[in-house]
Amino acid sequence: MSGCVGVVGATGLVGRTMLAILAERQVPIAELRLFASGRLPGRTVEFRGHSIPVRELSEAGLQGVDLMLFAAGNPVSERWAPLAVAAGARVVDNSSAFRYRDEIPLVVPEINGDLLESLPALVANPNCSTIAVVMALAPLRRAATLTRLWVATYQSVSGAGGRALQELEQGVRAGLDGPPPLGAGGAAPYAFNVVPQIAAFEDNGYTREEMKIVWETRKILDLPSLAVSATAVRVPVRVGHAAAVRAEFDRPFDPDEARAHWRAFPGIEVVDDPATGRYPTPLQAAGRDAVLVGRARRDLADPRGLEFFVASDNLRKGAALNAVQIAEALMAREAATRR
Amino acid sequence: MSGCVGVVGATGLVGRTMLAILAERQVPIAELRLFASGRLPGRTVEFRGHSIPVRELSEAGLQGVDLMLFAAGNPVSERWAPLAVAAGARVVDNSSAFRYRDEIPLVVPEINGDLLESLPALVANPNCSTIAVVMALAPLRRAATLTRLWVATYQSVSGAGGRALQELEQGVRAGLDGPPPLGAGGAAPYAFNVVPQIAAFEDNGYTREEMKIVWETRKILDLPSLAVSATAVRVPVRVGHAAAVRAEFDRPFDPDEARAHWRAFPGIEVVDDPATGRYPTPLQAAGRDAVLVGRARRDLADPRGLEFFVASDNLRKGAALNAVQIAEALMAREAATRR
Repeated sequence: MSGCVGVVGATGLVGRTMLAILAERQVPIAELRLFASGRLPGRTVEFRGHSIPVRELSEAGLQGVDLMLFAAGNPVSERWAPLAVAAGARVVDNSSAFRYRDEIPLVVPEINGDLLESLPALVANPNCSTIAVVMALAPLRRAATLTRLWVATYQSVSGAGGRALQELEQGVRAGLDGPPPLGAGGAAPYAFNVVPQIAAFEDNGYTREEMKIVWETRKILDLPSLAVSATAVRVPVRVGHAAAVRAEFDRPFDPDEARAHWRAFPGIEVVDDPATGRYPTPLQAAGRDAVLVGRARRDLADPRGLEFFVASDNLRKGAALNAVQIAEALMAREAATRR
Repeated sequence: MSGCVGVVGATGLVGRTMLAILAERQVPIAELRLFASGRLPGRTVEFRGHSIPVRELSEAGLQGVDLMLFAAGNPVSERWAPLAVAAGARVVDNSSAFRYRDEIPLVVPEINGDLLESLPALVANPNCSTIAVVMALAPLRRAATLTRLWVATYQSVSGAGGRALQELEQGVRAGLDGPPPLGAGGAAPYAFNVVPQIAAFEDNGYTREEMKIVWETRKILDLPSLAVSATAVRVPVRVGHAAAVRAEFDRPFDPDEARAHWRAFPGIEVVDDPATGRYPTPLQAAGRDAVLVGRARRDLADPRGLEFFVASDNLRKGAALNAVQIAEALMAREAATRR
């Protein structure tokens, strides 16, 4: 297929990464339309040697779009995604606006890409931390019953967007010779600090980010009552989310067996050789497609518990790459259906 | 008492913090002897307005010392602590050389300070991450039986010593406009990164730092068979260790009850008000004595599970302050015994 593809939020961190990945993967695109908000007059973005103008979203602009990738916030998706669907486009939405609706598939293609076979009009792209964790769990949960999950994240500042990343850069520069300045609204600084809050707090004491890990892990792995608990923490890293994971199964799970399952699973790279100091780090994951998994070891007190550490590029597999993979699968399925 | 006090490793991060704390707390000291290794000729350190020479350790230098604080590595403690004891000094050792010997008390004064009443000749000071975690657990485990513990740490670079801290500073500066350089021996950089290795790996796939958390938590809380698992991770923070903790008890443990126990416990400050964005961070803990505890919430799947987050100054309560507290308790006990 080489139809008309739209990208909403084309000037943001995830939107720009989407464009880079569409170009890298040589996704066939006959026409590319870029949308964003803010001061846009005259703004263009380079794509495959062409300067593409960035425009504001409008109903007229949606006409004729075959596939629309949304990389903006929830309010934009809530308003415009249904209009794009009504105008005949398929939508891959990176916001969390539709993720928790039963009728909307939440897809990591390597895990539950079969949900794309029915050619759904709107597909939700999961949370950036959740994707890395479920990628590592998916091959294990096929081999044994997953009973409990505990996650502590180490999330990079790019996950909070371009402005947050600027705040990190400024904070680090200011913090070279003095205390890093407070963040927006007196918030704890990102620079030289660790902040155990990502997104707003819910009434149960968990942040929305932590609840996303709970809800989305259950939905993607199709384990609706899985016991999951998470702590989501921001660390002064630019790109690359990591997580310490403890997974408990219904039987002892040997680390060697886990590594064998990971090696056989697409999109995972095992980086796990303590003897030579090899284990996943965000710096190593940044700019790459694979989810890095390592530090596999048995829970010392319970052989059914398996501990491991994951790192992945939150802008790529955690957001833009996964969305493009979904788009590619939809395009391929549609082409096959037409034949 | 106002005897002769010695500090070994007086020019290191922990040693210098010990001197600052001895001065702050106006610990009575008749004579102060400072020891270190390396290029020392003519080197002096300021203490309470006096320039104190720093000397190399020698058997002669140990004579007449009443209390020796060791803040050097294991080899120094292994060689010199027994000699200091033989010369009649009481020793508080910040290395891990003696921590796991049954006959050596491993003390956090607020928790098991009663072990100092017998005036032991050598007392071990615990690991910097472990201290914050056990401080938060101690008041809870008096109220209910602690059955399982899972810890993921966010440890600052000062925990690896002065040279590591320099490497962070240099890495951050170099990393402002390019990739941060690799660490010593090609190790993963500290700057703009997260490194899931602290100390060497053991045969079981855990690092020595992670095993310290296991062994020391059991010993300090006097729960020799407690199920503990840990992931120890270095983050690009200068001072202040944090940890995400999941503690499981034999009964449901309400977060409000936990906060009440923490408030009543010396050395803990509850920083836990999601509504106003208050939770512990390392930047907030740095330079302070209290262990900050917050983000208390119930495990979503099991009410016997309690999740929380701690942050504390790893150089102060995690090392130097705890050692000075032990020293003060020994001095007070000795004075009481003499009377």
